[in-house]
Amino acid sequence: MKSVAINGYGTIGKRVADAVSAQDDMKIIGVSKTRPNYEARTAVEEKDYPLYIGIPEREGLFKEAGIEIAGTVEEMIQEADVVVDCTPGNIGPQNLEMYKKAGVKAIYQGGEDHDLTGLSFNAIANYDDSYGADYTRVVSCNTTGLTRTLSTIDPIADIKKVRAVMVRRGSDPSEIKKGPINAIVPNPPTVPSHHGPDVQTVMKGIDVTTMALLVPTTLMHQHNIMVEINNDVETEEIIEALEKRSRVIVVDAEAGLGSTAELMEYAKELGRNRNDLYEIPVWRESINVVGNELFYMQAVHQESDVVPENIDAIRALLEMESDNEKSIAKTNKAMGIL
Amino acid sequence: MKSVAINGYGTIGKRVADAVSAQDDMKIIGVSKTRPNYEARTAVEEKDYPLYIGIPEREGLFKEAGIEIAGTVEEMIQEADVVVDCTPGNIGPQNLEMYKKAGVKAIYQGGEDHDLTGLSFNAIANYDDSYGADYTRVVSCNTTGLTRTLSTIDPIADIKKVRAVMVRRGSDPSEIKKGPINAIVPNPPTVPSHHGPDVQTVMKGIDVTTMALLVPTTLMHQHNIMVEINNDVETEEIIEALEKRSRVIVVDAEAGLGSTAELMEYAKELGRNRNDLYEIPVWRESINVVGNELFYMQAVHQESDVVPENIDAIRALLEMESDNEKSIAKTNKAMGIL
Amino acid sequence: MKSVAINGYGTIGKRVADAVSAQDDMKIIGVSKTRPNYEARTAVEEKDYPLYIGIPEREGLFKEAGIEIAGTVEEMIQEADVVVDCTPGNIGPQNLEMYKKAGVKAIYQGGEDHDLTGLSFNAIANYDDSYGADYTRVVSCNTTGLTRTLSTIDPIADIKKVRAVMVRRGSDPSEIKKGPINAIVPNPPTVPSHHGPDVQTVMKGIDVTTMALLVPTTLMHQHNIMVEINNDVETEEIIEALEKRSRVIVVDAEAGLGSTAELMEYAKELGRNRNDLYEIPVWRESINVVGNELFYMQAVHQESDVVPENIDAIRALLEMESDNEKSIAKTNKAMGIL
Amino acid sequence: MKSVAINGYGTIGKRVADAVSAQDDMKIIGVSKTRPNYEARTAVEEKDYPLYIGIPEREGLFKEAGIEIAGTVEEMIQEADVVVDCTPGNIGPQNLEMYKKAGVKAIYQGGEDHDLTGLSFNAIANYDDSYGADYTRVVSCNTTGLTRTLSTIDPIADIKKVRAVMVRRGSDPSEIKKGPINAIVPNPPTVPSHHGPDVQTVMKGIDVTTMALLVPTTLMHQHNIMVEINNDVETEEIIEALEKRSRVIVVDAEAGLGSTAELMEYAKELGRNRNDLYEIPVWRESINVVGNELFYMQAVHQESDVVPENIDAIRALLEMESDNEKSIAKTNKAMGIL
Ligand SMILES: NC(=O)c1ccc[n+]([C@@H]2O[C@H](COP(=O)([O-])OP(=O)(O)OC[C@H]3O[C@@H](n4cnc5c(N)ncnc54)[C@H](O)[C@@H]3O)[C@@H](O)[C@H]2O)c1
Ligand SMILES: NC(=O)c1ccc[n+]([C@@H]2O[C@H](COP(=O)([O-])OP(=O)(O)OC[C@H]3O[C@@H](n4cnc5c(N)ncnc54)[C@H](O)[C@@H]3O)[C@@H](O)[C@H]2O)c1
Ligand SMILES: NC(=O)c1ccc[n+]([C@@H]2O[C@H](COP(=O)([O-])OP(=O)(O)OC[C@H]3O[C@@H](n4cnc5c(N)ncnc54)[C@H](O)[C@@H]3O)[C@@H](O)[C@H]2O)c1
Ligand SMILES: NC(=O)c1ccc[n+]([C@@H]2O[C@H](COP(=O)([O-])OP(=O)(O)OC[C@H]3O[C@@H](n4cnc5c(N)ncnc54)[C@H](O)[C@@H]3O)[C@@H](O)[C@H]2O)c1
Repeated sequence: MKSVAINGYGTIGKRVADAVSAQDDMKIIGVSKTRPNYEARTAVEEKDYPLYIGIPEREGLFKEAGIEIAGTVEEMIQEADVVVDCTPGNIGPQNLEMYKKAGVKAIYQGGEDHDLTGLSFNAIANYDDSYGADYTRVVSCNTTGLTRTLSTIDPIADIKKVRAVMVRRGSDPSEIKKGPINAIVPNPPTVPSHHGPDVQTVMKGIDVTTMALLVPTTLMHQHNIMVEINNDVETEEIIEALEKRSRVIVVDAEAGLGSTAELMEYAKELGRNRNDLYEIPVWRESINVVGNELFYMQAVHQESDVVPENIDAIRALLEMESDNEKSIAKTNKAMGIL
Repeated sequence: MKSVAINGYGTIGKRVADAVSAQDDMKIIGVSKTRPNYEARTAVEEKDYPLYIGIPEREGLFKEAGIEIAGTVEEMIQEADVVVDCTPGNIGPQNLEMYKKAGVKAIYQGGEDHDLTGLSFNAIANYDDSYGADYTRVVSCNTTGLTRTLSTIDPIADIKKVRAVMVRRGSDPSEIKKGPINAIVPNPPTVPSHHGPDVQTVMKGIDVTTMALLVPTTLMHQHNIMVEINNDVETEEIIEALEKRSRVIVVDAEAGLGSTAELMEYAKELGRNRNDLYEIPVWRESINVVGNELFYMQAVHQESDVVPENIDAIRALLEMESDNEKSIAKTNKAMGIL
Repeated sequence: MKSVAINGYGTIGKRVADAVSAQDDMKIIGVSKTRPNYEARTAVEEKDYPLYIGIPEREGLFKEAGIEIAGTVEEMIQEADVVVDCTPGNIGPQNLEMYKKAGVKAIYQGGEDHDLTGLSFNAIANYDDSYGADYTRVVSCNTTGLTRTLSTIDPIADIKKVRAVMVRRGSDPSEIKKGPINAIVPNPPTVPSHHGPDVQTVMKGIDVTTMALLVPTTLMHQHNIMVEINNDVETEEIIEALEKRSRVIVVDAEAGLGSTAELMEYAKELGRNRNDLYEIPVWRESINVVGNELFYMQAVHQESDVVPENIDAIRALLEMESDNEKSIAKTNKAMGIL
Repeated sequence: MKSVAINGYGTIGKRVADAVSAQDDMKIIGVSKTRPNYEARTAVEEKDYPLYIGIPEREGLFKEAGIEIAGTVEEMIQEADVVVDCTPGNIGPQNLEMYKKAGVKAIYQGGEDHDLTGLSFNAIANYDDSYGADYTRVVSCNTTGLTRTLSTIDPIADIKKVRAVMVRRGSDPSEIKKGPINAIVPNPPTVPSHHGPDVQTVMKGIDVTTMALLVPTTLMHQHNIMVEINNDVETEEIIEALEKRSRVIVVDAEAGLGSTAELMEYAKELGRNRNDLYEIPVWRESINVVGNELFYMQAVHQESDVVPENIDAIRALLEMESDNEKSIAKTNKAMGIL
């Protein structure tokens, strides 16, 4: 039973905590917050997670709010075999020193640069690279989405190059201060965006160029993907490969799943924790091989697709399982992932 | 064990079905759909509900889609002690004849006129009115929200009159064809709106006038309520009464719950089925007694607040429990409602 | 011909500049910007306004961008009879010292506190208060909207008290970083909001309490107003009074003007500069006298309703016209206001 | 002076009417409406356009509303040299018979199929094809946008193939009943979308494949374009060509024009009628030649980019000007187009 600490109990952190708790070979020994808000309270009162505070000076605020704390982040990591760092993008780097000092392994998220750890992680594409390592980084939600389907397609289609347009949600559902309310925002306005190089950290050598924008929605990202392929494959073979691949699902617009909103509703029908859709849904109708080109559209539930990846990353770092597909299957089963 | 059929397995119907299944004194014997979409499939494959079809001619479509059907709606209601009719507003009236012929009791939803059944229902305000009746109507999500808090406040404050502005969500989350995208729409543009008279169907004689509008959001309605009161009460007494009342919660904007989006996130932290918030959240900061006036702001999760009311309505119609608070407590416990 | 400087050429400033230019008794001698963006460029190249810079150190940036500058803000105000300060809320106070030193009169906007100038302005309600004064403050867009209709209704209805719910746009159309994208936000979550006291700065002694919230739209605010009145008036009399009052228009939802979006479209049909709707539109269908209560719904084009008020404030401060209705009529005519 | 009738005075029709009025070689002899809404009223009262009714039985409704009508659509077209048909997509075909019977030439919009007229029109790409013809069709807003930039780039880059992703606005600004409010909708969910073949109606033989989706915004469409080219060109050459091309503008995100919302604000600064941006804005930062590939992002003001095209189509059909660039220049000058 390995001990896991979550530093930064926010959108990603709280999901990784629940996913860890769902496994039988690891457990949460603590989660950290910086403010005594409703998430801090429910972590303690609903989830029974020991709560540590990221900014010790704020102890009084937690006391005032009547939220019990177990100690500081520095104390929390002493007890852990691995820390999953889910703090916001700019905080992570300064935490690395603390982890090194404490001699604890650590997993970072996609908000950090690849250079921080020199190692990036996707369970399907490059599990072995992080096996036994001290630090790794689970790539971002968008990169995870691209990697899952591209690494499934490549073995049968032999990808020559990928061109993709990433239509990104403007904010997470509960971020009420971020916009835009009514605009499409090229973001970045330069081409290519950073998503292509990020895919290359887990799929070495792939030729991928991306363009990205923000739109006024909160639910999911959406990707439009155009792939030049070397092999002669049928549309049906691509569909079959995607259907066989776990963590990817092929969905039918025609069956009422024609938008990101209906996909989120579908997650509700599946009874998912927090309404999460861990799988990358690919629209069946969009998959089309024309000559040496393959087109498809997919969506990404930004809040949750990386969550099972973190579980597998824990197993890789702590050498709990050497076969990536075995770890994937174990994680999937515990979380009800298709 | 009473047998319940759900006619119309949509936004409300599927939630009532799950709520019935959570009780120990009633069970689902069938749900109905008109189209073989993903909801039809998950009803059968995830929830194990026998699926009946509302439009018999479409049997072929369900077969084609590989979704097993158990029969027609007419067949379904034969087996039931009570039907919960959750079809869209204009379908209900024509169903009444069918229910009468089959000799089955029925519960309608707020999209129907009070006149259809001559009886309306709210578990706190007028449970007894429907006790043993053949047909009743659970009032709409907005009316349920107003009734819950007003009927809690009235006993201590002695309400003289209520003036309320209902800021309504433009569409349910998965209704992608409804707008507005970027507008505020007085709806109706006439004053008063129908919500006041609707409250009067369950709180006889109350003086209440409402104004209503639509805004571009999907999550929750929001109400701004101004009450003239006869009694001399303190703000604290109102807060206490609301805190004590089940199905109403007092929330702190300051604790990070300052918007409908964060309230929906809170429902996720509570681990609720489908991310539902059955309770009416009232913002603590907004509750303010000034002279003979009481002001407060509340939100309404339109998809779910009426769901436990339907359970209690079943108990009232079938004379399963004569004490409304006992039914409420039983329902709450089974569903994890605060 | 009076000389007017605009300090802060943003949403409000650029509109006041154009409105000043449309008059025959005043002219723009300069406008100021802090960044060399497209507004700075069009101020110079399309509008021919001399451009001064608010932050002298940035001169280089404007040069690089090829935008000609005429000097610094300090230099600009030397030439002016009056400065209209349209900088963001927190900048204004520190500017007052500069204006005093330069001996120039100044008009502030609603983002500042009443206390800064000790004097607030609405052309209909209290023009005379600012006549000949050195400094005044045009009240905010929402307060201007409330004041226009309430000060029209009061003389015939004798207002006893006003209760209003202000449904505010989340951001101005071009503010792409502000949300919410999908939420209703009580703002403030405390009741009453500051809008009531703000109305009292221009309508002394009126009993007005307001509740306010933000919604995901950019176009206009919307107000829901409930007035207790002492006089016995007919709905028709209220409509007539509002129709007669300039800067207020009575619109028909039934004629296709049933939302803020259609009102903005209407401004396009009227050929308005920048698509502005300076008038407060009141929905005819919503106006309803019931007993001693009057209900109505109105909208506010936040970017423009205060613009003609600034013109009248200039005439009041500089003693160019002693009769408020004459100034209003002159301003209206020059700007095509109904 | 040619006589032009506008059948269908809606979003496109009212703009074409104003554009015709701005020319010195053609004039509006009538516009048509089917309902007596605010657009009908302003057509008569603000614009002085003779108003004809599309559905003669509704004459009474217009009389009731006090809107003066000049006759029926059948009467209107008798007087015209050409009709611009701006009715909704499904109405156009049945009108063709009427136009034929009346012996009047006609121009259709992009909502109709190419097959209706067998001829499609873009002023830059294929003006000559429609010269002297009886009927033509101005291609849709999206197709016009693609065609403008691609036909500018092709002569210098020699386009091999085009792959584009069209991120479309969910509804026009005043369409308050259309969604989505919070979703991304692949539309169509099949790939390729119809936009590619539509471009081929005006740029014969071009290899272009498109994917399309809807997002919750009203202002503009946005295009992400990936072009394989045969020639060896520099990014700078592409920029220069686009800058030289009228009806296309190169904009800087860095200068504050980084979104569709800010582009709409820019149109206000330019003092445009109805806030229209007739030009296709291309983001300078996005233009990038990498090897044999060119990437760029552009936006399309769906309500107005086709408007000047209609003017040129009139000149082509009526043989008023044989040189497309002369017609373009004339139209541009009259409308202030860059
Ligand atoms: N939100 C997404 O869609 C998403 C998707 C994939 C990856 N990520 C990445 O995951 C990481 C976390 O993002 P998030 O969206 O969960 O952020 P978040 O803001 O929701 O949560 C961050 C949490 O960290 C806590 N925190 C802040 N400073 C801290 C400190 N000094 N010490 C300890 N805790 C601190 C905050 O209290 C908060 O609870 C980022 O790298 C982000 O890029 C986010
Ligand atoms: N959605 C809300 O927010 C909400 C809240 C409270 C009350 N209500 C009320 O609940 C009722 C149902 O609304 P909803 O939002 O769940 O609607 P919905 O459209 O989500 O679901 C209606 C369901 O009825 C089915 N149906 C349609 N015609 C049928 C027929 N002839 N026979 C059998 N089934 C048929 C449809 O397949 C669909 O599954 C309405 O009266 C509505 O006013 C809705
Ligand atoms: N936007 C509205 O809806 C609205 C409505 C009514 C009143 N107001 C009030 O009008 C005022 C201006 O608001 P706005 O929306 O026009 O703001 P804005 O941000 O659109 O414009 C402010 C302008 O001031 C300039 N500026 C900033 N710092 C400066 C400095 N130190 N010196 C000179 N110029 C500086 C900026 O460059 C910008 O152009 C505020 O008090 C606001 O509360 C705004
Ligand atoms: N709105 C856009 O963004 C856009 C852009 C490019 C092309 N188009 C195309 O332009 C055409 C018109 O679209 P729109 O957006 O202007 O539509 P719209 O709905 O705004 O206007 C259509 C007008 O036609 C009138 N009308 C309806 N039936 C009629 C009839 N039988 N006889 C006469 N008039 C009738 C209506 O009153 C309305 O005023 C369509 O083909 C559309 O595809 C639209």
